[in-house]
Amino acid sequence: KKSYNITLLPGDGIGPEVVSVAKQVLNLTASLEGIEFKYQEMPVGGAALDLTGVPLPEETLSVAKQSDAILLGAIGGYKWDANEKHLKPETGLLQLREGLGVFANLRPATVLPQLIDSSTLKREVAQGVDLMVVRELTGGIYFGKPRGFGKNENGDEIGFNTEVYATYEIDRIARVAFETARKRRGKLCSVDKANVLEASMLWRKRVTMMASEYPDVELTHMYVDNAAMQLIRDPKQFDTIVTNNIFGDILSDEASMLTGSIGMLPSASIGDSGPGLYEPIHGSAPDIAGQDKANPLATVLSVAMLLKYGLQEEAAAKRIENAVLETLDKGFRTGDLFSTGMKLVGCKEMGEQVLKSI
Amino acid sequence: KKSYNITLLPGDGIGPEVVSVAKQVLNLTASLEGIEFKYQEMPVGGAALDLTGVPLPEETLSVAKQSDAILLGAIGGYKWDANEKHLKPETGLLQLREGLGVFANLRPATVLPQLIDSSTLKREVAQGVDLMVVRELTGGIYFGKPRGFGKNENGDEIGFNTEVYATYEIDRIARVAFETARKRRGKLCSVDKANVLEASMLWRKRVTMMASEYPDVELTHMYVDNAAMQLIRDPKQFDTIVTNNIFGDILSDEASMLTGSIGMLPSASIGDSGPGLYEPIHGSAPDIAGQDKANPLATVLSVAMLLKYGLQEEAAAKRIENAVLETLDKGFRTGDLFSTGMKLVGCKEMGEQVLKSI
Ligand SMILES: CC(C)[C@H](C(=O)O)[C@@H](O)C(=O)O
Ligand SMILES: CC(C)[C@H](C(=O)O)[C@@H](O)C(=O)O
Repeated sequence: KKSYNITLLPGDGIGPEVVSVAKQVLNLTASLEGIEFKYQEMPVGGAALDLTGVPLPEETLSVAKQSDAILLGAIGGYKWDANEKHLKPETGLLQLREGLGVFANLRPATVLPQLIDSSTLKREVAQGVDLMVVRELTGGIYFGKPRGFGKNENGDEIGFNTEVYATYEIDRIARVAFETARKRRGKLCSVDKANVLEASMLWRKRVTMMASEYPDVELTHMYVDNAAMQLIRDPKQFDTIVTNNIFGDILSDEASMLTGSIGMLPSASIGDSGPGLYEPIHGSAPDIAGQDKANPLATVLSVAMLLKYGLQEEAAAKRIENAVLETLDKGFRTGDLFSTGMKLVGCKEMGEQVLKSI
Repeated sequence: KKSYNITLLPGDGIGPEVVSVAKQVLNLTASLEGIEFKYQEMPVGGAALDLTGVPLPEETLSVAKQSDAILLGAIGGYKWDANEKHLKPETGLLQLREGLGVFANLRPATVLPQLIDSSTLKREVAQGVDLMVVRELTGGIYFGKPRGFGKNENGDEIGFNTEVYATYEIDRIARVAFETARKRRGKLCSVDKANVLEASMLWRKRVTMMASEYPDVELTHMYVDNAAMQLIRDPKQFDTIVTNNIFGDILSDEASMLTGSIGMLPSASIGDSGPGLYEPIHGSAPDIAGQDKANPLATVLSVAMLLKYGLQEEAAAKRIENAVLETLDKGFRTGDLFSTGMKLVGCKEMGEQVLKSI
């Protein structure tokens, strides 16, 4: 019997609720697929700050590194918002990504027929949207040095950051993107600001160089401002998008909101070797935390990504995806997606319904 | 009789066509309002590259600086896309902004009732959207140093840029934003990435400090990724948005596309003293250049902003705005906004129709 070690990082806000549902889903799937999961639950983010004084305890990182895959809930909350940088929950997440070396963040944005009316886009624009943002996750302005505060020539206080990419960083994310596009509809759009930024010029040059290795993938380039527009004008034109850390942060959130169901969207962060990090793209939603109102489906679908990308358990992944679709078909909706005629359920009951469908 | 010197910078692509319409509109308005305009037309962008070898000739900048206001068409085109950085049309535009010191870029995004169906957003979401993005225009990663190409410790090629803001740069753009919000609905949302970037932390701190001077303005803060989502989820929540150069580039284009009529949207770039730069937010559209297909209304409305913000000629500005609305009410549409039942016109005829309505 195959056995996998999973690190659970419930984190803050609604994190623990949605991770608890996802764990039940993992367990049932395991028993049906004849596999086994062992869990270690570790603190990260605000929870870790409260417990240990740092947002990513060393032990959390080392347990995570030794496991086969990591499931994260969400991090952050008002309570820690005013903290200094090194004591912010977000810093723990960034340290986790860096520590795990998960440089490629895959964020699908798919409009499900069942949820199309939740999109603020017109039906004919939203229908059929199915894109994947491949975001560089451990480089660029998030990690670039020098960074900090200082003074300029005139003695004014300044705050500064460095956007920097090395060829090897661009090449490895480009490769993930080309491979992803090849398994999808064979279209890759690289997004940059090469008309202004040197970091983007190098990005465009290296991505273009790699294209010859992927003659079956159609590569295009788009400036980030135009991409932000095109996602709204005609999102169906996109298949796979590859972009840097900060542009990916912005565009993947924009793309996810197009679907109208950000409570549904999973993500996978993977590296060259070592375990991947799987998490819903929504935040910790402190305003509804602990009220059994959260939508657990993004985390459940993150578990499906974990099985597919992290453990190559495709059948188990498919089982979960189908169960989610079936649950939606039956009309069950958490508050974020509720509309008349549907059945309003809380986080736990949504979990139970998914279990029934598995 | 009041007389103003206007620098016309037609630029590239559809630039000359739309500026020519705008000039006619200025002339007729002048005669009706009893004012006078004198023009100097100068090259910039690709046009300047072809003529003089540089994208912003010194003479263009000095003529512009000595005038009362500057009207720009658009710059850029495939022809110069592969040029080195210092020979890109875009570089000419950046040098112009820097040379004029126009640090505040005002970009309204308004959904006109006449054009609401052009938006890809559902009618109830688009209806009533009326927001203003105040984008910092002469700082941040666009201009920050050091920048360029180099090698890292391992000998890998790198491309790098610096995102940097000094307190005085933040303060002056914040002041424009608070003043703008005060004249609008009194709501200001400052957008940053203060959970990750030091440059944003300083931004948030300084904007917050200024709030006490504007007790009548309600200040909120939002992370840029969330702002990219909220613009789609519920754009009506925004009144005035203030943000840095690169986030403003992305978010203002996103906001403009929400309206579905990017061919309609003007912008104003202003400094502490000296003439402002007025331009449509659309690009040079090389694919339709010279075919009399361009929508001149964004440039016509930029002329209205020029009169209002640059020359304090409010009555003349209002006259032009009303003429544009009347022309739309009569059903005239260029190709970008055409739908059945409307009257399809080219760039020139659209201009003539506006002249009739003035
Ligand atoms: C919480 C924050 C640091 C993070 C990011 O900017 O990467 C989040 O927005 C995300 O996209 O996962
Ligand atoms: C052409 C380009 C340099 C410019 C910018 O990025 O500022 C444009 O996108 C704009 O927004 O005016």
